[in-house]
Amino acid sequence: MDAIEIRWLKEETGPAEILIEGLPGIGHVGKLVAEHMIQEFHASKVAELYSTHFPPQVIIEPDGVARLVRNEVYVSEGEKRIAFLVGDYQSASAEGHYLLSEAYLDIAERLGVRRIYTLGGYGVGHLVSEPRVLSAVNRAELRPDVEAAGAEFNRDEPPGGIIGASGLLLGLSFRRGMDAVCLMGETSGYLVDPRAASSLLAVLSALIGVEVDKSQLETRAAEMEQVIAKLTESERAGDEEALRYIG
Amino acid sequence: MDAIEIRWLKEETGPAEILIEGLPGIGHVGKLVAEHMIQEFHASKVAELYSTHFPPQVIIEPDGVARLVRNEVYVSEGEKRIAFLVGDYQSASAEGHYLLSEAYLDIAERLGVRRIYTLGGYGVGHLVSEPRVLSAVNRAELRPDVEAAGAEFNRDEPPGGIIGASGLLLGLSFRRGMDAVCLMGETSGYLVDPRAASSLLAVLSALIGVEVDKSQLETRAAEMEQVIAKLTESERAGDEEALRYIG
Amino acid sequence: MDAIEIRWLKEETGPAEILIEGLPGIGHVGKLVAEHMIQEFHASKVAELYSTHFPPQVIIEPDGVARLVRNEVYVSEGEKRIAFLVGDYQSASAEGHYLLSEAYLDIAERLGVRRIYTLGGYGVGHLVSEPRVLSAVNRAELRPDVEAAGAEFNRDEPPGGIIGASGLLLGLSFRRGMDAVCLMGETSGYLVDPRAASSLLAVLSALIGVEVDKSQLETRAAEMEQVIAKLTESERAGDEEALRYIG
Amino acid sequence: MDAIEIRWLKEETGPAEILIEGLPGIGHVGKLVAEHMIQEFHASKVAELYSTHFPPQVIIEPDGVARLVRNEVYVSEGEKRIAFLVGDYQSASAEGHYLLSEAYLDIAERLGVRRIYTLGGYGVGHLVSEPRVLSAVNRAELRPDVEAAGAEFNRDEPPGGIIGASGLLLGLSFRRGMDAVCLMGETSGYLVDPRAASSLLAVLSALIGVEVDKSQLETRAAEMEQVIAKLTESERAGDEEALRYIG
Repeated sequence: MDAIEIRWLKEETGPAEILIEGLPGIGHVGKLVAEHMIQEFHASKVAELYSTHFPPQVIIEPDGVARLVRNEVYVSEGEKRIAFLVGDYQSASAEGHYLLSEAYLDIAERLGVRRIYTLGGYGVGHLVSEPRVLSAVNRAELRPDVEAAGAEFNRDEPPGGIIGASGLLLGLSFRRGMDAVCLMGETSGYLVDPRAASSLLAVLSALIGVEVDKSQLETRAAEMEQVIAKLTESERAGDEEALRYIG
Repeated sequence: MDAIEIRWLKEETGPAEILIEGLPGIGHVGKLVAEHMIQEFHASKVAELYSTHFPPQVIIEPDGVARLVRNEVYVSEGEKRIAFLVGDYQSASAEGHYLLSEAYLDIAERLGVRRIYTLGGYGVGHLVSEPRVLSAVNRAELRPDVEAAGAEFNRDEPPGGIIGASGLLLGLSFRRGMDAVCLMGETSGYLVDPRAASSLLAVLSALIGVEVDKSQLETRAAEMEQVIAKLTESERAGDEEALRYIG
Repeated sequence: MDAIEIRWLKEETGPAEILIEGLPGIGHVGKLVAEHMIQEFHASKVAELYSTHFPPQVIIEPDGVARLVRNEVYVSEGEKRIAFLVGDYQSASAEGHYLLSEAYLDIAERLGVRRIYTLGGYGVGHLVSEPRVLSAVNRAELRPDVEAAGAEFNRDEPPGGIIGASGLLLGLSFRRGMDAVCLMGETSGYLVDPRAASSLLAVLSALIGVEVDKSQLETRAAEMEQVIAKLTESERAGDEEALRYIG
Repeated sequence: MDAIEIRWLKEETGPAEILIEGLPGIGHVGKLVAEHMIQEFHASKVAELYSTHFPPQVIIEPDGVARLVRNEVYVSEGEKRIAFLVGDYQSASAEGHYLLSEAYLDIAERLGVRRIYTLGGYGVGHLVSEPRVLSAVNRAELRPDVEAAGAEFNRDEPPGGIIGASGLLLGLSFRRGMDAVCLMGETSGYLVDPRAASSLLAVLSALIGVEVDKSQLETRAAEMEQVIAKLTESERAGDEEALRYIG
């Protein structure tokens, strides 16, 4: 097995204008949005990426079949062809984050991608009722459109920059002449957060000019809020730990 | 010394149909089973594997002789030739787990192995009186036989997948066209667990169609249960730490 | 992206006699001094250094544009040309510290640098009203001038040596026949410390024979001392944590 | 700078029968013995070893001159030529321990060494008034002489084997056909322990058939015992931490 292996599942994969990255991260906000869009757009898988930079383990599928950790690229077939980068894990090492992000960009280049949206969560450490969407771009010219779509740019939010693929893809794609926008849904950071995902999807949807049905995310968000309401009661009763470990 | 060194101890080693992996892990369940079978079948050592991916230390044998950390391959000479992978340690690094697992498969291929059984423990955090045996496979077609032999497939058990060689050998062997089954004996995770090993051996024995005398494992299990009974009394008396650190 | 990439921003960069290193470190003392001098001398950026040894993240600029972590080299244009090494981070790995320091020296050699000053903080764990400046050199002959400029050499200060670029540049430059002096401003280690930076700048300024206006550093130091005075009151009131996390 | 650099300081270095390794470790027992012998035998330095596997820092000499972390080889000039391996640090990474130990053996081979003594401490977690010397060998035939010299071989002492250069040199030298003996002075593990060093030196001295004046080690041991006596009083008075951090 090579350090990084890209497996194309089809001989010919048509071009995709944009790539949406939703790898696991804070509150799984980006993952929720990207996986939701893959489902809504009936996107089909075109590539798998395996790497010794991933954690050394296998994932057990619901049917009991174990498979190597991997990340995956899907492409939607609609009028606007969109590529999605989703998967199991980010890198297990600091250097691996750089090398894997370059591999993601190799894939994007082969697909003809000209703009990348990286999606993530911005953990603020407390429950948020109306989550904002924060942004960063890799060229100042991209900012007005992102603000018009409803995202905010605030100095020192997030403080210290953006860690992992969502950040590196902005910096590394700039070197290849690609545009890139990072959207971060405000979230507690304690829970999988479909409410933050829904807010983020509204902004992303406006940006890419594509309508996306959010009803499924909204349903999950409502369910989660009931869970949180119960947990908040527990918390008032002194059981803070219960809240902390729900994911 | 190379990053990974395989030393064949005999010029010619006959073929082996199956490989049973029992490297150290949770409750040493896999290690207990594999070492028990090596003893019962009078298997002889055919290869040693040394690596700079192992912890940087030596093991002191009972006679006072220190030797490098290593893993070993044994082959039984009976009607059904079985290879065993046992040893001192798994990898000291994440990447090393991948590289070492590939080396184990190189050995398996040279021996002509067509099916791999990886053995491990499934730590549940509390004492278990009648340990289940959980399983994962690398092809769905393998599942019925494994269930018929008494192992269970439960969604989210173990949660998050299988870490280390027992997991990676499933994923990596699939790429070489080999079948692989992981069997995990339910165990507290606090103690070396011959009871879980005995349960696992019953399933494995049925799967490979070979009778194995379990009396020695049963004796160790009975002894361990006496130790646990005493510890449980201590625990009732408030001394939880005593239980936690017995291995 | 290569493991280490040096990007020269101008085709021709004139020579610089000395290099002043002020990468982030204890109390950001070195960083404060180097950045202050870059501003005072209107030094202009001549090179950027990118590396997979840096933390895997991007920095968000005040305008919302994210860029890769990097270190930078500036050169002042005055009668005495001085090069400055500043930036976002030191290495994320032990080995990376060595490799990056060698790259810094490659840059220094290309600029014709003959003497290096590495600047840092010496954390003593308590507030210091009149911070000393401690020093180490890479040739004993350099010591008298450094002492004459006001720095001290004390056995076992800092105990255990000097960690990171400020230390390695002394050891590695010696092998290339360059002189190097490390200056460390005494600081609590808890706070960004412009007072320690101001003391250090006085010594450095004497050593390189260049007048530097310190008024801006002094203003920041006075502001910080007011903050500290308030914090010390809080501390007297039992709120030690408030002090510990200001940076 | 290469990953590992060996610098020979003399064009011609005469042969040495044995190599004594005393790198830093538990209680600095091995280091105390090796450095004492270098002094007693007026051994002179013949080689320095630099490596990016060492911690990324410099050591400040008493005269204020900083130098790279390094290990050193000395050779005594007496009737029995002995090589000594001493220095600042062991490896900063697991893999580095293997690679550095191989480099130490390259040096030993060039010197014509046929037997290696690795010296270390065996930390038992409590003060020891009459420290034993424990041993391990890399060939069973070496054991009788070591026992005759006063060292003990006990199963499971140290439990889990010997970590670092003192262990690896046994395992790796065996592959090159060299004999190797590890001697470990029993020590609390909390303090630099000249008493354990003195016991170890007695055994080593008998083994190599060379008289070594131990008076200096004995003096340091007596001084340390006075320190310990005072600390033990403090400890009785409840100040356990004072004991724990003396080195």
